[in-house]
Amino acid sequence: MASQKRGRQSFALAEPPKITAWASVVGKKEAEGPLSHTFDIKCRDTYFGQATWEQAEKHMQQLALRKLADKAGMQQTEFDLVFSGDLLNQCIGSSFTLRNTGIPHLGLYGACSTMAESLLAASMAVGGGFADRVVAMTSSHFASSERQYRFPLGYGGQRTPCSQWTVTGSGAALVCREGKGPKITACTVGTVKDLGITDANNMGSAMAPAAYDTIRAHFDDLKTGPEDFSLIVTGDLGQLGKEMLLELAKRDGVSLGGKLADCGTMVFDNTTQDVHAGGSGCGCSAVTLCGELLGKLSSGKLKKILFCGTGALLSPTSTQQGLPIPGVCHAVSIQGGA
Amino acid sequence: MASQKRGRQSFALAEPPKITAWASVVGKKEAEGPLSHTFDIKCRDTYFGQATWEQAEKHMQQLALRKLADKAGMQQTEFDLVFSGDLLNQCIGSSFTLRNTGIPHLGLYGACSTMAESLLAASMAVGGGFADRVVAMTSSHFASSERQYRFPLGYGGQRTPCSQWTVTGSGAALVCREGKGPKITACTVGTVKDLGITDANNMGSAMAPAAYDTIRAHFDDLKTGPEDFSLIVTGDLGQLGKEMLLELAKRDGVSLGGKLADCGTMVFDNTTQDVHAGGSGCGCSAVTLCGELLGKLSSGKLKKILFCGTGALLSPTSTQQGLPIPGVCHAVSIQGGA
Repeated sequence: MASQKRGRQSFALAEPPKITAWASVVGKKEAEGPLSHTFDIKCRDTYFGQATWEQAEKHMQQLALRKLADKAGMQQTEFDLVFSGDLLNQCIGSSFTLRNTGIPHLGLYGACSTMAESLLAASMAVGGGFADRVVAMTSSHFASSERQYRFPLGYGGQRTPCSQWTVTGSGAALVCREGKGPKITACTVGTVKDLGITDANNMGSAMAPAAYDTIRAHFDDLKTGPEDFSLIVTGDLGQLGKEMLLELAKRDGVSLGGKLADCGTMVFDNTTQDVHAGGSGCGCSAVTLCGELLGKLSSGKLKKILFCGTGALLSPTSTQQGLPIPGVCHAVSIQGGA
Repeated sequence: MASQKRGRQSFALAEPPKITAWASVVGKKEAEGPLSHTFDIKCRDTYFGQATWEQAEKHMQQLALRKLADKAGMQQTEFDLVFSGDLLNQCIGSSFTLRNTGIPHLGLYGACSTMAESLLAASMAVGGGFADRVVAMTSSHFASSERQYRFPLGYGGQRTPCSQWTVTGSGAALVCREGKGPKITACTVGTVKDLGITDANNMGSAMAPAAYDTIRAHFDDLKTGPEDFSLIVTGDLGQLGKEMLLELAKRDGVSLGGKLADCGTMVFDNTTQDVHAGGSGCGCSAVTLCGELLGKLSSGKLKKILFCGTGALLSPTSTQQGLPIPGVCHAVSIQGGA
């Protein structure tokens, strides 16, 4: 039995798995943003050559998986297992990507926390000795999300100032027992927090309490703190949620100030790209991790990060029924190294 | 590092976790069926005292979780982790059940295979040393499923002969490192199979190829066969899917005949309860496992079963877009013992 060091919500891996390869696929708007140079595949067609936006999302995952295999110098059939999920009802982006590939697949649902959740699950699978080469993957698509969660795009609904822009993109990371790359040293599983936010256009605020709760749990469980990280990167709180997280930490006597970054504020240029409070969607933290962040961890520009995927666990049905928005956040500690 | 014995899709656990407690909650129709005596909580109100069917589904999971804690003689807060998912868009049944409970939660999506998927994930978490007391849970509700996947109930749509009846129920099982109960000895992760079935009212046929593929992988990977099991129990293929699975096995030279049972044909009396091809939904295999099957494994009436959760990975959107129905099946081998 591997003796993983543990706390209430966290575990430190006795034998840290390595992220040996990563790949990212994005759409036009993301390719025009500040992280453009970090993405592997960029496509100007919102349909990615497919008949529908849902199939475009599936195709992005297919491209990410293929690129990941290329970059790892492997065949896709050499992957032992894929953990993936997305925002589409019944996660059809992920299921249709994996169909008839012959790759074992476990589907996840963690809303926009899925990149962190899939990395965490992959760490368990590899760290526990159940598999050697495991893919963590997710995607989101602006157009498929808008019509599913909000309005048909043709309706031209006005967006509120606190709303975020769903990233069109897919990210995939390969978590291995052997090989070289940034190491996953520890993980924290989030609890579902609900502080009564009911505005489905203000998801950053709904997720910030969960983010703080998980970051705090990671510090407490594993006797660590902001000083041990180059960067604490939240999934997609956006500008408003990020400020709320800083405030929550401050009130609790924890200073995250200089260390906090948010994928939702990194992936777009908020001043010129008209995205209001920033980026969101499963793809937001996925493409930021599987480009900018893993790149800098690999090159030594970042020593260690706490990657905190945040998810708003609402559905259009729960919103229509007047229910608040539960949030969740899963954290993965990644140490740099090539 | 634990040395789990492994095959392409399967692993045998070096230290088999035990299922120390289980609980089931069902609605009126299930309580009138042949497994009635095996359920913990039965409710005649389809709303379970809630305002909507979606909240009824959430409430069933809450009841199952509470009952599980009672039966285990624990507080809910002593659970280390809950793996759960359901059929509702964005899995709101599971998320809302866990909100503000303080229990770490990882959301899954595996459609009707979720009970097996959550047991498999729980086995990794416990077997890998990441947690000691992990809950595997899921639910489905006839009324919330019908209106989400098919027609509003008030419309009174005619059901086709091959359609199945979504079980209203929730099942939860506690997977532990220590304690007594049936053991999880091995698991097989399914691959997504799609043979081109496009009739969303014939899900048994869409899932049967995945079921056979996983059962065959389990046998091949772990050098075992039907002779080693008292029962091979598929998730919810229903009558038609079960017959198709038998045919697929026969053509491949594998005799499952006397050993095959299907939760979809066990949970209702097809001759008197007007359910057409049988039961379905995440709750179908969940309540059959967390009542009848674990009961008999515990009392020694069953020596060892291969529990094969089957899922149809469609969504109303994929069906409307004319796409076929991918199927998946995850298998968990459970050995009897008190």
